[in-house]
Amino acid sequence: MKTVRLGVIGFGIVGKGVCEVVKDKAQLYKEKYGVDIRIVCVADMMNSIYDEDGIDLDKLMQSNQERSPVIKYPDSSKDKKWNGEMAIDNIDADIIVEVTPTNIKDAEPGLTHILKAFDRGMHVVTSNKGPLALYYGKVIEAKEKSGKELRFEATVGGTMPVLNLAQEALKGNNIVSIKGILNGTTNYILSNMAFEGKQFDDALKEAQEKGYAEANPAQDIEGWDSACKATIISNALMDKTMTLTDVEVKGITEIKMEDVLDAKKNGNIIKLLVEVNEKGAKVRPTPVPLNSPLAVTGTLNVAVFETDLSKDITVMGRGAGQIETAAAIMSDVFAIAR
Amino acid sequence: MKTVRLGVIGFGIVGKGVCEVVKDKAQLYKEKYGVDIRIVCVADMMNSIYDEDGIDLDKLMQSNQERSPVIKYPDSSKDKKWNGEMAIDNIDADIIVEVTPTNIKDAEPGLTHILKAFDRGMHVVTSNKGPLALYYGKVIEAKEKSGKELRFEATVGGTMPVLNLAQEALKGNNIVSIKGILNGTTNYILSNMAFEGKQFDDALKEAQEKGYAEANPAQDIEGWDSACKATIISNALMDKTMTLTDVEVKGITEIKMEDVLDAKKNGNIIKLLVEVNEKGAKVRPTPVPLNSPLAVTGTLNVAVFETDLSKDITVMGRGAGQIETAAAIMSDVFAIAR
Repeated sequence: MKTVRLGVIGFGIVGKGVCEVVKDKAQLYKEKYGVDIRIVCVADMMNSIYDEDGIDLDKLMQSNQERSPVIKYPDSSKDKKWNGEMAIDNIDADIIVEVTPTNIKDAEPGLTHILKAFDRGMHVVTSNKGPLALYYGKVIEAKEKSGKELRFEATVGGTMPVLNLAQEALKGNNIVSIKGILNGTTNYILSNMAFEGKQFDDALKEAQEKGYAEANPAQDIEGWDSACKATIISNALMDKTMTLTDVEVKGITEIKMEDVLDAKKNGNIIKLLVEVNEKGAKVRPTPVPLNSPLAVTGTLNVAVFETDLSKDITVMGRGAGQIETAAAIMSDVFAIAR
Repeated sequence: MKTVRLGVIGFGIVGKGVCEVVKDKAQLYKEKYGVDIRIVCVADMMNSIYDEDGIDLDKLMQSNQERSPVIKYPDSSKDKKWNGEMAIDNIDADIIVEVTPTNIKDAEPGLTHILKAFDRGMHVVTSNKGPLALYYGKVIEAKEKSGKELRFEATVGGTMPVLNLAQEALKGNNIVSIKGILNGTTNYILSNMAFEGKQFDDALKEAQEKGYAEANPAQDIEGWDSACKATIISNALMDKTMTLTDVEVKGITEIKMEDVLDAKKNGNIIKLLVEVNEKGAKVRPTPVPLNSPLAVTGTLNVAVFETDLSKDITVMGRGAGQIETAAAIMSDVFAIAR
């Protein structure tokens, strides 16, 4: 039995999702894959829980049902006063799971966490777009120096396999281009405008009420979330070292009902399309045929890989969700464990 | 640089496709992945070409542009009088690529080839459905005894990733069910009946004229090709040891225009649907909503994975084609090489 010890840095939606999945499935993973996944540390901004034999996840989740800036745990000897950075400095783990929120200003604290994890000789799995969209070169340099692995499926398309699909299942192919819809919030808004006749503001409000859009929706509707994903895909699949500012970005804030209706008249629907190829990356509202595989509705994500041998391969799935994102992280953990 | 030596057993459409891809891309694979893929042997029913340093694929493909029962090669010292079985007995290779035609009566000669390859301590990659749909238990036993790997992405859904997607990109998930359309010929016929108003016989004839259906289309239209794939998916992803006769099979030969029109009236289209879950596997004509991800047209294939964590993940792609199938084989070769 191979033991894999995770240090989870960030205890928000995604971090809790990872703990929840490991809590529920660790026994099954042992039986099915012969891998004993243990979470030895969870860290947030104020404190960390650290048990080198593995945290009792039933107790952890039981103690943290309500939001709190401090992670609670019944055994106070395991409660350290470390923030994420200090936790990485002090713990003994195989993989750092970096799941703090994306920050597209300076990529912190994720960037420091990832660099430090490599410096300490640990693998990294992350859902944090900031470090990879802003400082990919720096991150890869640290990874190469450490000789450890870096995986980031959850940064792109949530639970829908994009990077692992391209790098493994499509290996042997040359990927010519990737087109996709990688932001559920804008897809929900645009679907609602096209099919329910809602105005932009009303559609956005509904997305916020349903929890699909954040209180400050700028990153989604202005296209920056999609642009982060475009950057990361370009770097990972097109061998680029791009940053966010290299992407041509236009969001959906200027889309009027008449644009939506014009598109519909021609059998199209407007989507916030990500396009990545050898020449670069673009994010912009684009009419796509209603019967195209790209015309997915609701909050779904989709990616079409144009390849030299397999031609077009399309994948669709959920772009967000706590457990869904945790699933993408687990696929990366297992890829490193093998 | 890692060298991977392939013995290609079968020199029909798929075998030639693999040679073509390696011929065109070996240099790129060296540069991109650091893997030197060499084809050391190609074998057919009458003879084999064997060069332990790697066959000159330019010369091989140049010499075999026309169909012939005998593989031709300019250097006659490399021309052995071995059939596939004898080739496996005599060659030194890392991976046997078994690409002889599927035989659902007794799975031969593929079964003997695969068992012998394991017996000689070589990995196996195959596109041959027969051995896996009829004798999965026996094949797995030989594989386990040898300690080598067996991969068979190309047996299911052509170039569309199904097995590698589920076993790698969706690892961590429990797969609850798989629904799919895994036969391009029947999908072409049913699409043509629904959208062009063609009768079954005319649609079949057109599929034959376009090369999508074989002269004897029984395996496709009676559902046996789909049933082979259902068996293989059950075995690989549901931990079963099923054989073809365990699948409930109904083909499309009895589908009348009135069934197609009835379905259409309700917003549906009839598809030859494969359904696999814990309880078993079924292949049967099934109405699916026209706006469902399963309603792919033409010869496309599609699979929807219902999972516990990621919910539904859909993949679409080409189910057949010489180079496309070779691409699926190469993804398996790289998975073993890593």
